Amino acid sequence: MRTQEQRQWAVQSSKVAMRTKNPIRMIVDKLDMNSVSKDKPLISLSIGDPTVFGNMDTDHSVSQSIARAVDTRRSNGYAHSCGFPHARKAVADKYSLSNHKLNENDVILASGASGALDIVIGAIADEHDNILVPTPGFSLYETLCGNKGIECRFYRLDSEKDWETDIDHMRSLINERTKAIIVNNPSNPCGSVYSPEHLKEIVAVAEEFCIPIIADEIYADMVFEGVKFTFLAEVTDTVPVISIGGLAKRYLVPGWRLGWVVLYDKLNILKDLREGMARLTTVILGPNTLVQAALPDVIHNTPQEFFDNINKQLSEHAKHTVNRVQKINGLSLSAPKGAMYCMVSIDVERFAEHTGGEIRDDITFAQALLKEESVVVLPGQCFRSPNYFRIVFCPSIEKLEEAYDRLESFCNRKLNLNK
Amino acid sequence: MRTQEQRQWAVQSSKVAMRTKNPIRMIVDKLDMNSVSKDKPLISLSIGDPTVFGNMDTDHSVSQSIARAVDTRRSNGYAHSCGFPHARKAVADKYSLSNHKLNENDVILASGASGALDIVIGAIADEHDNILVPTPGFSLYETLCGNKGIECRFYRLDSEKDWETDIDHMRSLINERTKAIIVNNPSNPCGSVYSPEHLKEIVAVAEEFCIPIIADEIYADMVFEGVKFTFLAEVTDTVPVISIGGLAKRYLVPGWRLGWVVLYDKLNILKDLREGMARLTTVILGPNTLVQAALPDVIHNTPQEFFDNINKQLSEHAKHTVNRVQKINGLSLSAPKGAMYCMVSIDVERFAEHTGGEIRDDITFAQALLKEESVVVLPGQCFRSPNYFRIVFCPSIEKLEEAYDRLESFCNRKLNLNK
Ligand SMILES: Cc1ncc(COP(=O)(O)O)c(C=O)c1O
Ligand SMILES: Cc1ncc(COP(=O)(O)O)c(C=O)c1O
Repeated sequence: MRTQEQRQWAVQSSKVAMRTKNPIRMIVDKLDMNSVSKDKPLISLSIGDPTVFGNMDTDHSVSQSIARAVDTRRSNGYAHSCGFPHARKAVADKYSLSNHKLNENDVILASGASGALDIVIGAIADEHDNILVPTPGFSLYETLCGNKGIECRFYRLDSEKDWETDIDHMRSLINERTKAIIVNNPSNPCGSVYSPEHLKEIVAVAEEFCIPIIADEIYADMVFEGVKFTFLAEVTDTVPVISIGGLAKRYLVPGWRLGWVVLYDKLNILKDLREGMARLTTVILGPNTLVQAALPDVIHNTPQEFFDNINKQLSEHAKHTVNRVQKINGLSLSAPKGAMYCMVSIDVERFAEHTGGEIRDDITFAQALLKEESVVVLPGQCFRSPNYFRIVFCPSIEKLEEAYDRLESFCNRKLNLNK
Repeated sequence: MRTQEQRQWAVQSSKVAMRTKNPIRMIVDKLDMNSVSKDKPLISLSIGDPTVFGNMDTDHSVSQSIARAVDTRRSNGYAHSCGFPHARKAVADKYSLSNHKLNENDVILASGASGALDIVIGAIADEHDNILVPTPGFSLYETLCGNKGIECRFYRLDSEKDWETDIDHMRSLINERTKAIIVNNPSNPCGSVYSPEHLKEIVAVAEEFCIPIIADEIYADMVFEGVKFTFLAEVTDTVPVISIGGLAKRYLVPGWRLGWVVLYDKLNILKDLREGMARLTTVILGPNTLVQAALPDVIHNTPQEFFDNINKQLSEHAKHTVNRVQKINGLSLSAPKGAMYCMVSIDVERFAEHTGGEIRDDITFAQALLKEESVVVLPGQCFRSPNYFRIVFCPSIEKLEEAYDRLESFCNRKLNLNK
């Protein structure tokens, strides 16, 4: 018991809350967003939300499916905490592969792919276990593992090989507390898309060490001209694959918060995990039921044309980006094949030399670019890759051109090449 | 490193997942739902979802607000992880009290009241801390605390005093690891509504021990004829009150998963907690943006008539329930004043005596009632109150009458009173 004298208000935040870190937020907080040049309108190449630029919108049929679900007023009640069975079945049907037939029990609906990852990571590892995570990689993995006291072990992606996994490095990180390998394909932030052969190399590691794979495939099928996407589960019948997906990116509705976990698990290796995940769904009781109710319609009836158009548009934006940025002094990049991102390498030594150390890393680069050119890019440190920055190439071609003009004159100026 | 020989698949569920327990699910799993009488259509008095019975529907204006948000296609993108500022502002305006002016920074939107509670409980206590929880009480508190390794200390509500808090018992449970007191008013499952005087008694305990109150006020203003609801924060200017609310019950849209945390914290005692909660919102990035976008409209423009009608309807259902059930042999109850529930006490000794032990507690009572009369009630053990059962009185009066007829003949039969 507290004694009378000791009693005073001292409300603190829990350890769990305080170990929950969003690296992007922490680094962006360091950029002084108020420092933008007043002469130039801000152009953001940093926001991973395709809807904010005004040129990419979900299909009309998708909105209509939701409107119908609203209109009937028959989907306002609680769903099963794993999701309405018919909505889960729609996902199961859509994501069945020729070597993996799914049913509704292989699907859990969640509050975004983030919610899906939260459930999977929470169910698969204990505090002080570890999970292998790609670097450069999406920072949410670190946020989620940090929240749960799970160690992230960061395996390298090789910039020289179109961001393929450094398999030897991955292998070297595994120990007896390694509970899962996260593979993100197509990749945020790299824009890479893996070949079946490379996926098989990753699967071989999982097979050897008996470690399940969490395949973050939220950008599934968002690939550019001439590129084919392969689901990880297509290349294995034996390694259990926990695939993460959702409506956010493919259907251009990230705010709707509908994601899913799909289990490719022929050998029923994930039996215990299913129970654990089901328990975790009872904490917040699943995603919005209007979106769930519309899901079969959305998944089965969105015209292929919509997806083709988006991919074509992103393809063109990617091409422009590569054409322009690879010609800029001090920068280099490898061509993205999918998703909506690419990583640009900064020749920091050269910049440091010419700027007397003013620009000495990705953060000082991004800060100066923001201040002088009103262009926002995310420093690579957000993805544990210093000396890179990430470009989101969703904005219109005109906006991108303007941004790349400014980026080019910025680099030339900093490298004393205009004078 | 695992050696070659040891390598085999052994995927288990995490401790955290396995300590996440839904008491209702565990107890309902014990009832054999397939045992229902074939002659009688099932009547469920167990489901805490007012929309499933077909007689209670959200207001047309609420659906229309969402339809508009869908239609503009301007609210499909990510929101701030704490929610759109204008949506938070609507909650702040609506829930400002004469002694507490709120602004948008005092509000966090979450995935249902469940998501709101998950964030608050996760931010306020560490593993092995404890939180005071009412009994009979809503089982989610136990689920959430269990998930986080936080101890629930169950304080008694007094059935003899309209389920008021046993203040002495509450005080006796507090120790230096007590991080919060959860108060649920109006109460699920009791249907009680506390007077300002009783709320002041609870506040006095919090004040004495410097422990913040989590006020689960999701049934705020859902009160019956002649009863007035008081927000907990109305009776204190000094004890920080973390109020939980949402659209689920009041607007009859539980599936939409929109809840909120509201901080009444004049003395800024919760400064650290705010940071912790904000961090936890970055895990799943807030609730559905269509509902968020519609929130100002829904909160400000739903006609008062809609709420009055629902309260009137629930009032009548409550009255019928009391009239009928208090006359049934072997049962007793105190009249509910709000929410949509009441707890009925079973004279188990009498039932045990007359049934040769077949009915000896709330679970055997509920099981036999289900089997013989096709009426589902939730055993009190779901709420840590053995020898009670909970009635949800949302179904139509006709359905309720039919259910109470069956309940009456069941009790008479079991007590040998028909013969
Ligand atoms: C690789 C990856 N996974 C998951 C997510 C989260 O998706 P959601 O918005 O559905 O939570 C994102 C979002 O940017 C992402 O890039
Ligand atoms: C007391 C209480 N709090 C919270 C909740 C959860 O509400 P939501 O559906 O918004 O998560 C419920 C739902 O039954 C409840 O009865």
